[in-house]
Amino acid sequence: MDPWSACSLPRTSVCGTDLHILGGDVPAVAPGRVLGHEAVGTVVQVGAGVSGLTPGDRVVASCISACGVCRYCRQASYGQCRNGGGWILGHLVDGVQAQYARLPFADLSTYKLPQSITDDAAVMLADILPTSYEVGVLNGRVRPGDTVVVVGVGPIGLAAILTARLYSPSHIIAVDKADSRLQAAKQFGADIVAKPDADVLELARAVTDGLGADVVIEAVGTPAAFELCTTLVRPGGRIANVGVYGKPAALHLEDLWIRNITITTGLVDTYSTPTLLKMLGTGQLDVGHMITHRFGFDDFVEAYEVFADPAHTGALKVLLTRH
Amino acid sequence: MDPWSACSLPRTSVCGTDLHILGGDVPAVAPGRVLGHEAVGTVVQVGAGVSGLTPGDRVVASCISACGVCRYCRQASYGQCRNGGGWILGHLVDGVQAQYARLPFADLSTYKLPQSITDDAAVMLADILPTSYEVGVLNGRVRPGDTVVVVGVGPIGLAAILTARLYSPSHIIAVDKADSRLQAAKQFGADIVAKPDADVLELARAVTDGLGADVVIEAVGTPAAFELCTTLVRPGGRIANVGVYGKPAALHLEDLWIRNITITTGLVDTYSTPTLLKMLGTGQLDVGHMITHRFGFDDFVEAYEVFADPAHTGALKVLLTRH
Amino acid sequence: MDPWSACSLPRTSVCGTDLHILGGDVPAVAPGRVLGHEAVGTVVQVGAGVSGLTPGDRVVASCISACGVCRYCRQASYGQCRNGGGWILGHLVDGVQAQYARLPFADLSTYKLPQSITDDAAVMLADILPTSYEVGVLNGRVRPGDTVVVVGVGPIGLAAILTARLYSPSHIIAVDKADSRLQAAKQFGADIVAKPDADVLELARAVTDGLGADVVIEAVGTPAAFELCTTLVRPGGRIANVGVYGKPAALHLEDLWIRNITITTGLVDTYSTPTLLKMLGTGQLDVGHMITHRFGFDDFVEAYEVFADPAHTGALKVLLTRH
Amino acid sequence: MDPWSACSLPRTSVCGTDLHILGGDVPAVAPGRVLGHEAVGTVVQVGAGVSGLTPGDRVVASCISACGVCRYCRQASYGQCRNGGGWILGHLVDGVQAQYARLPFADLSTYKLPQSITDDAAVMLADILPTSYEVGVLNGRVRPGDTVVVVGVGPIGLAAILTARLYSPSHIIAVDKADSRLQAAKQFGADIVAKPDADVLELARAVTDGLGADVVIEAVGTPAAFELCTTLVRPGGRIANVGVYGKPAALHLEDLWIRNITITTGLVDTYSTPTLLKMLGTGQLDVGHMITHRFGFDDFVEAYEVFADPAHTGALKVLLTRH
Repeated sequence: MDPWSACSLPRTSVCGTDLHILGGDVPAVAPGRVLGHEAVGTVVQVGAGVSGLTPGDRVVASCISACGVCRYCRQASYGQCRNGGGWILGHLVDGVQAQYARLPFADLSTYKLPQSITDDAAVMLADILPTSYEVGVLNGRVRPGDTVVVVGVGPIGLAAILTARLYSPSHIIAVDKADSRLQAAKQFGADIVAKPDADVLELARAVTDGLGADVVIEAVGTPAAFELCTTLVRPGGRIANVGVYGKPAALHLEDLWIRNITITTGLVDTYSTPTLLKMLGTGQLDVGHMITHRFGFDDFVEAYEVFADPAHTGALKVLLTRH
Repeated sequence: MDPWSACSLPRTSVCGTDLHILGGDVPAVAPGRVLGHEAVGTVVQVGAGVSGLTPGDRVVASCISACGVCRYCRQASYGQCRNGGGWILGHLVDGVQAQYARLPFADLSTYKLPQSITDDAAVMLADILPTSYEVGVLNGRVRPGDTVVVVGVGPIGLAAILTARLYSPSHIIAVDKADSRLQAAKQFGADIVAKPDADVLELARAVTDGLGADVVIEAVGTPAAFELCTTLVRPGGRIANVGVYGKPAALHLEDLWIRNITITTGLVDTYSTPTLLKMLGTGQLDVGHMITHRFGFDDFVEAYEVFADPAHTGALKVLLTRH
Repeated sequence: MDPWSACSLPRTSVCGTDLHILGGDVPAVAPGRVLGHEAVGTVVQVGAGVSGLTPGDRVVASCISACGVCRYCRQASYGQCRNGGGWILGHLVDGVQAQYARLPFADLSTYKLPQSITDDAAVMLADILPTSYEVGVLNGRVRPGDTVVVVGVGPIGLAAILTARLYSPSHIIAVDKADSRLQAAKQFGADIVAKPDADVLELARAVTDGLGADVVIEAVGTPAAFELCTTLVRPGGRIANVGVYGKPAALHLEDLWIRNITITTGLVDTYSTPTLLKMLGTGQLDVGHMITHRFGFDDFVEAYEVFADPAHTGALKVLLTRH
Repeated sequence: MDPWSACSLPRTSVCGTDLHILGGDVPAVAPGRVLGHEAVGTVVQVGAGVSGLTPGDRVVASCISACGVCRYCRQASYGQCRNGGGWILGHLVDGVQAQYARLPFADLSTYKLPQSITDDAAVMLADILPTSYEVGVLNGRVRPGDTVVVVGVGPIGLAAILTARLYSPSHIIAVDKADSRLQAAKQFGADIVAKPDADVLELARAVTDGLGADVVIEAVGTPAAFELCTTLVRPGGRIANVGVYGKPAALHLEDLWIRNITITTGLVDTYSTPTLLKMLGTGQLDVGHMITHRFGFDDFVEAYEVFADPAHTGALKVLLTRH
């Protein structure tokens, strides 16, 4: 039996992955499953095997659970846990869009919060900050002086802009169809923004001596977005895929075989969560503009509708608070 | 003007890329171009800007030329040279399937040979040893204890087996349609061999606790081969693409997005050539079984025919010697 | 309370660190402490928090215990565990030179043994194989074609030779005062051997175009040995310190500041233990020559005496077996 | 013969290394040698082997010259060039504290300057920016969220603070004897400053949960400064040595052997110069406060005196301009 804790959850949010689930892209989710893998709460009960938590602790419930013992967990690849962990909340077990939740493997799957971190900020630690940082910025190996393109600047893409800046790229180019999101991208630190139908490659070449982007971060999850990424990257560059996909994409190896490209995919492992938590505390990461809408627990349906239609609602993160 | 040397070339060989050129996969090659980017010869003349060569030096003519000054060359990414180098021999300038050749940027594009290295062995240094090692083994980050699958065991795939062994993987699984090549793969060090229509994934899982291969090296250059590779790799594993492609492949991101895969492509940079030259000298690399056929310079057409039909001829490397 | 298991221990061995303890180099060891951190045994009882062990399991008791939750354990730096783990057996808690032992944090501190691994081989997994591999070979970043010097070829140095070979260096130079150990070094794979009073630098230069060694592994633990290492390394090379020290050494920065040297120190983390276990099983690591002396549990004093005087006894590893 | 260019040099500066030379720490410098390895100028003549420069080009003369062909240059370890390059200006050949200089291996040893980079800023590219960045920040592997201590905040230490910030550490602690330099350190981005006689370890522990600094950068060049560094670093941390030494230091291996420390030394390679040049252009690096004193070419003696006594003069970089 895994070491679990039960938490009361006053604050939770909706993730783009929840929409993918509702759209049928994640067939492993059984009907009736409670969704949700982003929440902040208070421990109310701990199982016998838990060593580091006590009732009353305020914690973020991470989207990834980790046994800590299997081959992958021993390498901090918690997202690939072979022992019942990984991404299970709101996927293979009931999730955190609920008043209470049982959190498996609680020692490695929750993070105690200092008072300096608000609930609003802490919810961003459950998924979008570590996902954008690990799967986008670190997999993409962003380095000082780089030119980075982020394709898709919903919440994950915006968090990728925010965390990419920790490595001081010279340029961040944000690409999205929605004007409201391009505006948000500027607030989060992009210096160049464009619609996907513009000549993004020309924009990237203009600031890279004609070479193309050092790093391209894919944060949409469609074949068209992925294929755009592969045209934007310079020889020797990296494409870090963050999006959740329901369909295959074409990989133009007839062009790419000779260009020394690296493509990565990934579910977050959350090994960076303690570092990100520290940087929220020092003020190095400001997620103040991320939450655009707030609802009570009685309004889940409306919250999903607003979140699913960002072009009209301008929604970034949608927060649900239990009163 | 680049610092060049002219070489007399007594020994040259045919590469799979030459067949791709004849098949139309490399449209940049102009009609009438002298092919060839693998040869051993003797310097007969050196241009004014050459500092390290003198007439009489015995050298291997590398498939990659390098200006040494551009952004990519400064990072030893010689294959991506922006200044007139890269893969140019038998591609953008006349190549080395000839009695004599002019070798641009000679200081960084040739390697002096000690007496202990035979001409036969040295020809393997021009392309297949550094290509399989850098683009296959090093891009794939083979590590001690790994399970490595090599899909396609023509000369490049066999050289990948040979150089992968430098990192002591626990298992090397060779996949090819031709029985003669699977036999050769065993000679070069594969411990498991299979046809692509066998259940290769089962074979990989049987030696990896059900996980799949740590590293898959693609050395064919067809969509079917690439797609096979993506089914064989374990979560967190690497696919190193070495093949030359004329068509796109399907990338099944609907399965792969969650599996933390790394895919690399690449033209060789030849940064490893001095190290491989040393290891040929110490006997750590034995290419003795690589050359299966020998022809004179009058028999180029026959040499190409034999090389192009390995299923019947059993051809690995085909060597042409000037008498 | 940590999740512990109790083991019956039929086989244990003496480590050089035990001699350092007896010599006073490790003042944290309290009088009366049961020594020993290398053993093989059978689980007889498991605490409530243990998830992966059951009585009857045959295991190696690792020299490192790990909580699995602290900052260091989350990065697989188990040796630096902040939560009561690290090197504690035979140091801060009673060790395994005993009939039975209580092993803290048992899930991450023991490794289940397949039948194919003998007790003799498994004892080498408790400390000397992972220590020499991680702290010597991996910290030293041994690469194919390198020249490696191992200074001190007692059991740890010999295991460093054995595991360095996994990376196919071109030369391994073993340095020791004792002829018997230099003989053993040849058996384990060194191709050049020398006394420390010989001109080791000349030997290293003779095989490296005059540059010096790529990697030097220190496995003695004396200032003289360390200072020898810093003279042997080439510009840009690595010195991996494995020895246990009781005194400071002189670091000749007036020579080294300009030479781009990397020096590492380290207690083993044991992150490589599962991989080494696998390679013992595949026969890639042969520790057959490591055990030179065997005693019963009644002869501990004699076993220590033999082990402490290798120049006369020729002792490598000394094994104690309970009848 | 190397490919050289001759430059007219209107602006040069004095480096701490020049003082080490005058103090006798660099015995290879012959009497009568023209010192100086930091300058900006205009190409007046180019040798036959130069491909990328023409008279009239405005360039920074880098402190490192590189043949581009030897084993080290091929790995961008230009500082260790075996072929007549490395740090030679003002050391083994006449340097750039002069009206004109001959610059060997000009293609790889100079960098063309865009108009957007002022002469003042460009002089910082000759040595202190790449040295502090490569040998301090990159060798020390500074990462987002780290705590970095810089011991010695003369010009090199200040440049280390400036370039460390590119990686968004959470804290930078500056240590120096001179109040004026600690003031400058705050301007450059240190958030904590201290004298070396204060309890710097306590300061480091206070912001690192008691562990100590992740990275310590040594920028003094005395045994006392180095030994301070080794007490400040956390288990698993890195010490990046930048200082120029005339004497050995004590390495307290009796404490450090168990702490998984990495120590690096290094002469700059200048592989980062193109990136730093770009970041000066984008405004990501502001060296505006670095030059404190200006002299004409008639006042070299006074310039050296002011530079050698920073405690009284407050000197950081001292610039000499030819009228």
